[in-house]
Amino acid sequence: MAIVTVQVTTDRQASLQDITERVREVVRRSGVTEGVCTVYVPHTTAGVLVNESYDPTVAADILAALDRLVPAQGPYRHPEGNSPAHIKASLVGSSQSLLVQGGDLVLGTWQGIFLAEFDGPRQRRVLVSVRP
Amino acid sequence: MAIVTVQVTTDRQASLQDITERVREVVRRSGVTEGVCTVYVPHTTAGVLVNESYDPTVAADILAALDRLVPAQGPYRHPEGNSPAHIKASLVGSSQSLLVQGGDLVLGTWQGIFLAEFDGPRQRRVLVSVRP
Amino acid sequence: MAIVTVQVTTDRQASLQDITERVREVVRRSGVTEGVCTVYVPHTTAGVLVNESYDPTVAADILAALDRLVPAQGPYRHPEGNSPAHIKASLVGSSQSLLVQGGDLVLGTWQGIFLAEFDGPRQRRVLVSVRP
Repeated sequence: MAIVTVQVTTDRQASLQDITERVREVVRRSGVTEGVCTVYVPHTTAGVLVNESYDPTVAADILAALDRLVPAQGPYRHPEGNSPAHIKASLVGSSQSLLVQGGDLVLGTWQGIFLAEFDGPRQRRVLVSVRP
Repeated sequence: MAIVTVQVTTDRQASLQDITERVREVVRRSGVTEGVCTVYVPHTTAGVLVNESYDPTVAADILAALDRLVPAQGPYRHPEGNSPAHIKASLVGSSQSLLVQGGDLVLGTWQGIFLAEFDGPRQRRVLVSVRP
Repeated sequence: MAIVTVQVTTDRQASLQDITERVREVVRRSGVTEGVCTVYVPHTTAGVLVNESYDPTVAADILAALDRLVPAQGPYRHPEGNSPAHIKASLVGSSQSLLVQGGDLVLGTWQGIFLAEFDGPRQRRVLVSVRP
């Protein structure tokens, strides 16, 4: 199956955008009953993260912790001023592998998939590939 | 091949549980000679990590470093009190891709695969999928 | 296709070595037009990271941030003195999944693939597998 692009519009500088249902829809439409779903973010100041989507305070705590780990004020050398976003994206990662069974994503009870935006607001793309 | 579930019982709040041999067994039984093995943790306060399994002080240093990076005392908003575990799991990640050759896992000399428990003790599941 | 080993010689203690073109060459030679490329680092003090390769100050800022997060001076228990390298490798991760389309890697405009060296200088291996 071809790669499917999911478009995400972020509305703040930093946010975890829940894309679980959109990835799930790609999996269901792929016709793959058992396999692996690769989620890839082709950006350098955003990443992909799997964690709790049920209670939104978890996402808020993850973002705040990353802010404490990677302060807005450097010293940083990159002249564009968004080094913290590059560093956070490196910590979170650009890809996640998810499993597919029974034609659907296999996720834990509380798990959701998030585009992790660190340099928004922006138009972002998430690439999804499902393979048997 | 169907997804295989490896059950792991953790006995402390935080630990790196070596699951290398159990993942290796899944790979060997899969009959796949060359391919990719996806290890997925369907929990939001645990992750999967590949690092040195030979000397256990490495795992101890990794856990202690994560404790310094993500302190037990917040401020955190999530009312369940386990935000540090969610944050550590996000840093470590929910999935790892491993390679298979000659019907066996391809690991570096010192590498082992760990379930990274951050909110134990608990019963945990690790999902393993091997594909040619 | 068999796993291809890319040899990388690092020349400093810590560096992000751009391996994008070498991974791309493996993908092109694989004959796979659409699929997934798994990049795996079989070391415990190095990892693989995808981020901006265009402006080298980004890599410098990522390395400096990791130095601040994981100080050279512990306390660490591992007697070999390279615990910071193990911890940084655990944060960055040992594997990345990349997508393949039209017989080539799908990368964002600014993205490059890096071997993240944290305990060099050394001879390192990066394993690349491309599957339809």
